[in-house]
Amino acid sequence: MRLTDPVYIKGDTLFILDQTLLPLEEKYIAITDVDQLCEAIKSLRVRGAPLIGIAAAYGVLLHILRNGFSVPKLKEVIHKLAATRPTAVNLFKALERIEKALESGAGYEQVKEIIETIVREEKEATLRMAEYGVQEVKGKRALTICNTGVLATGGIGTALGIIYKLFEKGELEMVYVCETRPLLQGARLTAWELSKAGIPYRLITDNTAGYVMSLGMVDFVVVGADRISATGDTANKIGSLTLAILAKYYGIPFHVVAPFTTVDLSIESGEDIPIEQRSDEEVTCVFGKRIAPEGAKALNFAFDVIPSKLITSIITDKGVAKPPYRDSLKKLALFSDTEIREDSG
Amino acid sequence: MRLTDPVYIKGDTLFILDQTLLPLEEKYIAITDVDQLCEAIKSLRVRGAPLIGIAAAYGVLLHILRNGFSVPKLKEVIHKLAATRPTAVNLFKALERIEKALESGAGYEQVKEIIETIVREEKEATLRMAEYGVQEVKGKRALTICNTGVLATGGIGTALGIIYKLFEKGELEMVYVCETRPLLQGARLTAWELSKAGIPYRLITDNTAGYVMSLGMVDFVVVGADRISATGDTANKIGSLTLAILAKYYGIPFHVVAPFTTVDLSIESGEDIPIEQRSDEEVTCVFGKRIAPEGAKALNFAFDVIPSKLITSIITDKGVAKPPYRDSLKKLALFSDTEIREDSG
Repeated sequence: MRLTDPVYIKGDTLFILDQTLLPLEEKYIAITDVDQLCEAIKSLRVRGAPLIGIAAAYGVLLHILRNGFSVPKLKEVIHKLAATRPTAVNLFKALERIEKALESGAGYEQVKEIIETIVREEKEATLRMAEYGVQEVKGKRALTICNTGVLATGGIGTALGIIYKLFEKGELEMVYVCETRPLLQGARLTAWELSKAGIPYRLITDNTAGYVMSLGMVDFVVVGADRISATGDTANKIGSLTLAILAKYYGIPFHVVAPFTTVDLSIESGEDIPIEQRSDEEVTCVFGKRIAPEGAKALNFAFDVIPSKLITSIITDKGVAKPPYRDSLKKLALFSDTEIREDSG
Repeated sequence: MRLTDPVYIKGDTLFILDQTLLPLEEKYIAITDVDQLCEAIKSLRVRGAPLIGIAAAYGVLLHILRNGFSVPKLKEVIHKLAATRPTAVNLFKALERIEKALESGAGYEQVKEIIETIVREEKEATLRMAEYGVQEVKGKRALTICNTGVLATGGIGTALGIIYKLFEKGELEMVYVCETRPLLQGARLTAWELSKAGIPYRLITDNTAGYVMSLGMVDFVVVGADRISATGDTANKIGSLTLAILAKYYGIPFHVVAPFTTVDLSIESGEDIPIEQRSDEEVTCVFGKRIAPEGAKALNFAFDVIPSKLITSIITDKGVAKPPYRDSLKKLALFSDTEIREDSG
């Protein structure tokens, strides 16, 4: 299985797969300066927190390759990139790491190595999640929502990474992909990834999930996560809560898959996770085409919150947490990243 | 509250609100012959089983007004109209009633009276459902799916009829309208009806239903029905099963509203109701715009089946059935239509 690389450097040019054109057009943009990259991040041509981190790190390398190594200039570049998306944790973490190295006097070779390490580590983390995941999930028929694959992470993915790994091992029969209204990441991006990888899938409207479960067609549900509280309550793409309740009703395991950085032990419970409400237009229009009457008001929550009691396991790059999550997540937090890497060696 | 009349006769012309243009354009077509009406029914300009029944009955009247009263010609017209939609129960019932009258020697005045009776009865049945409904449902904040209102019935509606009635009585605060993928009858038609009637509503993507329930924003769910078995299992628009499971999880009452003709006592359980699968394109395209990769396969069930144990009550024009439904539905079946009309008169 050959996966697409949505962001890579070749020579002194950064290539970015334009996700706004998917699934109808598969076009890489050749990026030659940092302003161009900033535009690509802001306008969602690159999306997914881990992938944005990778793109930003490569942006710094691009600047060096094109303009030479100048610490004050590189700091400018770093601040410009950090201002593109206000909530992307991986973006800040990657840029901070490079900036710290610069401040402690690192030269070109060292900075280049750090950038390559950032990219490698993001990708390796997804492989570890997938390895833990295939040991944890049972069954051949998966159901998922949104896009949590290569296009979101640069690596094999979070929830979708497990699906790739199961397929590689010959243990996957079918993936039911929820289209994921309003922005249709399931229909546009996940269906595209699975098509490319030759993995059998069926696209379903989000409201079909209950019926396919009732027909006994789903063995397990896997979803990503945007934020996980100390008690295991999980905020994820709108629709995830509904899937968790349906899975509970039919006795189907429901797994959350996310890098451990998603766990925020300072947040006590799901009620404390702020939920973004987005514009009415995302609901009342599809690709610019109006589907509701003029003046129609919508309610557009970007995420919902899954109470931990509905979650069978939380699969992270540090290992698998099981209920009670307060204990199991705290335990995983104690492992350093290095220990984990050696352990999964 | 002044409701739109989606089908009416004025002078010797039949006017039909073209539902394929909603919600962007509100345009009546002036129909002057039966072939034109057949086209309008086939191409879904008129939709909803009860409304199709009304349109067909008016079609016969239109023919008489334009071409005079000739029994052989009228029989031709009836057969032409009956061939437009293969599964519309109300269409066949209405036309059969007119044909029987013709066969027993009815003249123009009698046929005209029968047609007017058919139209009146369809509308009255929805008013009775709404009357029973407002006594049955509790709360000010409703959630519904698909279109079950004026545009589907010509009368006040089935599930939406109760919402109209509650609003009229000043007892309604908010309606959450599921957009109802794939064909978006909620976004296109129900939102349009509620806008026209000045009823406060918020449009939501289907996958938002669980989250609004979790936030305590919904007092009851009302849905229509396409077929109800002897045990109360109910086939309805895809997504209804998911809503019923969510409502059960949150302890929210879930009501089915349908004319008693929808109950088929010869069908033992939900498993015996055949479920139509429709084309992949309805899922992979929205208004002709592709949202999934070329070659993407979808699973497109038009309906799902709600097991009766998830249903709080079934509200019909003959009265309200409660669990156990095998008994309560059988009891309602014993009332003749005339008794009901006198009872509610």
